[in-house]
Amino acid sequence: MRQAGRYLPEYREVRKQAGDFLSLCKNPELACLVTLQPLERFDLDAAIIFSDILTIPDAMGLGLTLEEGIGPRFNSPLRAATDIEKLPEVDVEAQLNYVMQAIALARHELAGRAPLIGFSGSPWTLATYMVEGGSSREFRHVKGMMHDQPGSADLLMQKLTQSVNDYLCAQVAAGAQSLMIFDTWGGVLAEPDYVRFSLEPMTRIVQSLKSNEATSDTPITLFTKGGGNWLEMIAASGCDAIGLDWTVSLSSARSRIGHLVALQGNMDPSVLYASSDKVANEAIRILDDYGEGGGHVFNLGHGIHPGIEPDRVRVLVDTVHQESAR
Amino acid sequence: MRQAGRYLPEYREVRKQAGDFLSLCKNPELACLVTLQPLERFDLDAAIIFSDILTIPDAMGLGLTLEEGIGPRFNSPLRAATDIEKLPEVDVEAQLNYVMQAIALARHELAGRAPLIGFSGSPWTLATYMVEGGSSREFRHVKGMMHDQPGSADLLMQKLTQSVNDYLCAQVAAGAQSLMIFDTWGGVLAEPDYVRFSLEPMTRIVQSLKSNEATSDTPITLFTKGGGNWLEMIAASGCDAIGLDWTVSLSSARSRIGHLVALQGNMDPSVLYASSDKVANEAIRILDDYGEGGGHVFNLGHGIHPGIEPDRVRVLVDTVHQESAR
Repeated sequence: MRQAGRYLPEYREVRKQAGDFLSLCKNPELACLVTLQPLERFDLDAAIIFSDILTIPDAMGLGLTLEEGIGPRFNSPLRAATDIEKLPEVDVEAQLNYVMQAIALARHELAGRAPLIGFSGSPWTLATYMVEGGSSREFRHVKGMMHDQPGSADLLMQKLTQSVNDYLCAQVAAGAQSLMIFDTWGGVLAEPDYVRFSLEPMTRIVQSLKSNEATSDTPITLFTKGGGNWLEMIAASGCDAIGLDWTVSLSSARSRIGHLVALQGNMDPSVLYASSDKVANEAIRILDDYGEGGGHVFNLGHGIHPGIEPDRVRVLVDTVHQESAR
Repeated sequence: MRQAGRYLPEYREVRKQAGDFLSLCKNPELACLVTLQPLERFDLDAAIIFSDILTIPDAMGLGLTLEEGIGPRFNSPLRAATDIEKLPEVDVEAQLNYVMQAIALARHELAGRAPLIGFSGSPWTLATYMVEGGSSREFRHVKGMMHDQPGSADLLMQKLTQSVNDYLCAQVAAGAQSLMIFDTWGGVLAEPDYVRFSLEPMTRIVQSLKSNEATSDTPITLFTKGGGNWLEMIAASGCDAIGLDWTVSLSSARSRIGHLVALQGNMDPSVLYASSDKVANEAIRILDDYGEGGGHVFNLGHGIHPGIEPDRVRVLVDTVHQESAR
């Protein structure tokens, strides 16, 4: 996740060239270029397409701006029931064609060196930004809608579920070989609300992709940040892997859910601020915590912070390879 | 938690009179007054002393300021090993006498109407503010210290553990009848770091209070926000109750830890933005989720947001009483 990004000087160079963040996402050549940058530097086992989780709400016409230091803003947040009713479905092939082009280019450039991962934000996570109008701490408006206008909230989730499903199908058609759904804000919900508004929409997407011949073989990873309480339920969604943040111990996750799905994770990205020795030690601790056998996809538990020294990422990647071989 | 506060107009009135937030905390008469305000309005079963979790670092001389909309700031954050070595112990009876006076006054004014709860921030949570210099999202400096200077981090935790222990003892001597330790930021740690830097210091405090004749009968509640993965370990600390945020289901918490400790929680404070009917329904859902038998202390899963309509709190309190009786 965010393996391309602000911690790499060559990324900052391209970003300057592109102008703002959204222009970079919408430029397939440059998006492909920054997708591949981390693989030029480090011995990574996969590439993830460079994009933003908010491409779908942007295509729905909410007027997205992404300003440095401020974060995402929508000019027209959804508040009234009529806002939700009027919300158009996304024609992903037409409106998000820039993402498909970037995927096709990156897949071509990778030429089999490493598989390419596509992704989307989860319906619930997209809804939080669309209803709040940006980032939030209290989620006042979207939780208010969930509680007081559950019909509107359900309709919004239906529309987003359809669009995310179409989006992920199109990404596979364009060349994505594995899919991730990032549920950044599922962990702010009470359990029954998580099940209804976050997990069920993701489950519908997983089951639709699995029953579609074109996508049935594509591995799907679900990542709910702060979802450690709900691993058994997430594993039952039909997904192939669960992404874990660093608050969950891999060994206890494994003992809770057995070998039903693979586990991806889970180093705290803040460890990369520490010395090289400590980064290596922590990687080894996590590999040992997972223990013997297959089914572990080593990853950070969330995105790389912009202040990280790129060399620490090299230490991490090399340690994981050496120790896994051992 | 924060049952007194910005959502009450009578609180805002007293706050205006006191000047800034810290001046209000340091004025025993006014702190007592705002402690009692929610009990004048609502049929609450307990009062919690009005104060701030950062009184200890303030007494250690870090230069605390609390500005509206900015949050806490320390003029002299702790970064170098020598900063930690030079950090003075707090003479709680002298330096935090204003808290003890507020507790004694509030206990007197309550006159047995409801028990009075004292509290402290956890050593780890205090350390995050002291090392970062304020609120944080990445916890870069304090995690950096934890990883790269574990000796300094351990020394800081030792000093804070001693001060928090003294502080809670003094609160009981002044009249507090129950104690809570708020570990607001334990949930940002990987499991082994949580155990070493957050849970172990809290456990040492609990065990010290339990082995001290003056405090051994005082119930102690530990609350780690985002600590749902670690309930079994928290329950084994020797505490009397665990505070839960709303991401954990009370029934699954109960089935995981048995009846070793009481459970406090766990309504999402954002539910209070919803209609009265929905607030009542959610309270009933939570009581039903806990189920039959004793050992449940109904509470919010975190503090009340400032924009909440006070009448919603009345609906909540009255619903809990009616349904509990039923």
